[in-house]
Amino acid sequence: MYIAIMGYGVVGSGVAQVINKNHDSIVRKSTQSELEIKYILDIRDFPGDPNEKLFVKDFDVILNDPDIKIVVETMGGLHPAYEFVSACLKAGKHVVTSNKELVAEKGCELLGYAAQNNVNFLFEASVGGGIPIIRPISQCLAANEIDEFAGILNGTTNFILTRMINDNMPFEEALRLAQDNGYAERDPSADILGHDACRKVCILASLCFGKHVYPGQVHTEGITEITLEDVEYAKNWGGVIKLLGRAKRSEDGKQISAIVSPAFVDHHSQLAGVDDVFNAILVRGDAIGDVVFYGRGAGKLPTASAVVGDVIDCARHENKQKFFGWADSQDGYVSDYLDATTSLYVRANCNHPSETLSNAQKAFGEIKVLKRPNAPENEIAFVTPVATERELRTKLETVLGLEVITTIRVTDY
Amino acid sequence: MYIAIMGYGVVGSGVAQVINKNHDSIVRKSTQSELEIKYILDIRDFPGDPNEKLFVKDFDVILNDPDIKIVVETMGGLHPAYEFVSACLKAGKHVVTSNKELVAEKGCELLGYAAQNNVNFLFEASVGGGIPIIRPISQCLAANEIDEFAGILNGTTNFILTRMINDNMPFEEALRLAQDNGYAERDPSADILGHDACRKVCILASLCFGKHVYPGQVHTEGITEITLEDVEYAKNWGGVIKLLGRAKRSEDGKQISAIVSPAFVDHHSQLAGVDDVFNAILVRGDAIGDVVFYGRGAGKLPTASAVVGDVIDCARHENKQKFFGWADSQDGYVSDYLDATTSLYVRANCNHPSETLSNAQKAFGEIKVLKRPNAPENEIAFVTPVATERELRTKLETVLGLEVITTIRVTDY
Repeated sequence: MYIAIMGYGVVGSGVAQVINKNHDSIVRKSTQSELEIKYILDIRDFPGDPNEKLFVKDFDVILNDPDIKIVVETMGGLHPAYEFVSACLKAGKHVVTSNKELVAEKGCELLGYAAQNNVNFLFEASVGGGIPIIRPISQCLAANEIDEFAGILNGTTNFILTRMINDNMPFEEALRLAQDNGYAERDPSADILGHDACRKVCILASLCFGKHVYPGQVHTEGITEITLEDVEYAKNWGGVIKLLGRAKRSEDGKQISAIVSPAFVDHHSQLAGVDDVFNAILVRGDAIGDVVFYGRGAGKLPTASAVVGDVIDCARHENKQKFFGWADSQDGYVSDYLDATTSLYVRANCNHPSETLSNAQKAFGEIKVLKRPNAPENEIAFVTPVATERELRTKLETVLGLEVITTIRVTDY
Repeated sequence: MYIAIMGYGVVGSGVAQVINKNHDSIVRKSTQSELEIKYILDIRDFPGDPNEKLFVKDFDVILNDPDIKIVVETMGGLHPAYEFVSACLKAGKHVVTSNKELVAEKGCELLGYAAQNNVNFLFEASVGGGIPIIRPISQCLAANEIDEFAGILNGTTNFILTRMINDNMPFEEALRLAQDNGYAERDPSADILGHDACRKVCILASLCFGKHVYPGQVHTEGITEITLEDVEYAKNWGGVIKLLGRAKRSEDGKQISAIVSPAFVDHHSQLAGVDDVFNAILVRGDAIGDVVFYGRGAGKLPTASAVVGDVIDCARHENKQKFFGWADSQDGYVSDYLDATTSLYVRANCNHPSETLSNAQKAFGEIKVLKRPNAPENEIAFVTPVATERELRTKLETVLGLEVITTIRVTDY
């Protein structure tokens, strides 16, 4: 059976490397007599590369070759990945991708093309890098109604927050260190503003709850506003700050909430100890309870191993489409994040700290006041009780009139 | 499509409950028009049970009904489960089981019957209860050569150790508490002597390394010798004591080591914070690195949800056997545990502590001396460097002549 790889970047070259390294066991597991890369599509030249003779620059070579049964898309970005993948599926070729942007924006449509043409469109590598998550949710947890999930879905921001928490390193310095280590891009905005995590939330939410969630529907906050002061207050509260991507089904199942934002996570949570570039995803099902999946969320070989796992699955199911898909969603399916209930950490400046805290106590009912060493006299920090976020923010603004510096949602995973 | 359940105990009744509760989504995911329980086999009577009219006492009713395509085995024990499952597979029925003893002792043979009859024999629930682990290893990590794994595989012993570590509760008292909470049987020996964990190690090792490992081949130690003194020394060392089931492939892939025993686990390990009845399994692959799966390792609904996930998979693959199996193994495939390299924690009594520690230092090269408050004057504790266990034990006995109280293997997961 012949494969084509589109995009010979970090992940694409990793795919070729894994297939070559573990060739015999991969062929055996694929239940094919052979599994061979026939073409690699890339606009760049790779002189001296061991796969040099496989390179093509014209997508139509792949599209029009009936020998190619499985196409691996590791180009990234929405265009031309979307056009190429659509064409491959419509031509009856299985497609495996690691492209989270593609799945988050076009997953529902592409799964439809796959179903119409009795082929598979698989994307295990698009969330959590090499961590098995898509297949466990869709198969192993199939007997469950999934109620919610929460994950550390971006390794770059988790590395930065870990340096801030463990080494007291300011954000800017931690970001530079991440860039120096190759964990962050020169333009790190997709990571630090939460867009990358948002795409993964969309994919997981679509899979868990059965309707497509688009990135534009998910309220997304990054970590650029988090300071070492907040890290200290989180420690005093009894936990750490993590960038979490979360989604939750409403009780009647007609709506979901979905959000990406920094969050207070209790020290006892299984998510609290997930450090550096590691990812972890907690899934809560009605029968299973909490399950957590942990591992390397990015990197050449981990991600490539997930892609190749999907390739093996396509080869095994050459003439059978795995049931795998979700419906499109309507406006209003994802609820306004201000309607979700939460507890908020609040850090603010005020002229009369003890009076303001006393007023906050009255306004919110119970608050938990937090301390840090050497705090300026006019700084206060506290954690509110649980209420809708709208209600909490209204009280902060109108009742207390606080000059709020930071608010961070408090979780109980 | 019709199903039969054999054994209406905790898990079997949970399977019926999950199928009834999430019926519509389970049918949809199974890609069948219906999925219905037709028979429940049990020698006991269940008057007033909602499924009362489904009960049969004669296995042949199930075996000889061609409508029954999937049989769920949740009887436990080796006999008659082995005979019943063999007969079902030979009759062309898919079988799903949660029975770890059956898979550990007869897995290779039963997978052979499944392959010969083009049906599936699935057992996701046999390891880690509801935690997805069998399918992620066999499918998601299929592109990897798996090098080793280590897991907290028994919830009962983990509950007991957690009480000892967090609440300073002696072993006997923690065991009684586990029994009072329903986490331990009246006869707890299969759990506390490590036999249950051993069966799970056999299943995981067979799956990860491709050859059947039998319980008799795995050196197994329980937690009955662990005392609060050891717990304190582990804390001083910087970690906790966990009952780990582990296996590791030799470099040439021709042998494996496999063992169940208490182990020192560093506080920073992802396994250290796995408390109470939770399980976690760390899998190390050549491409993915470390992945950890965490969740409830037992319990009615978690385990039932894993069984039903397998049922859905059988229904989806009604006429297709999933590639899934391993070869039988020869004598010598599992190496002698004394040949594995490890570091050992040693607690001993001696008449001249400082002299003995000085001799140990000479004998082993470097040792790390451990302290605990209020230790008797004649008690010493230390951690050896890494060497083969045989070499370490020989030195302890012949060179030092120590009256060793406890030794515990030290890990670096």
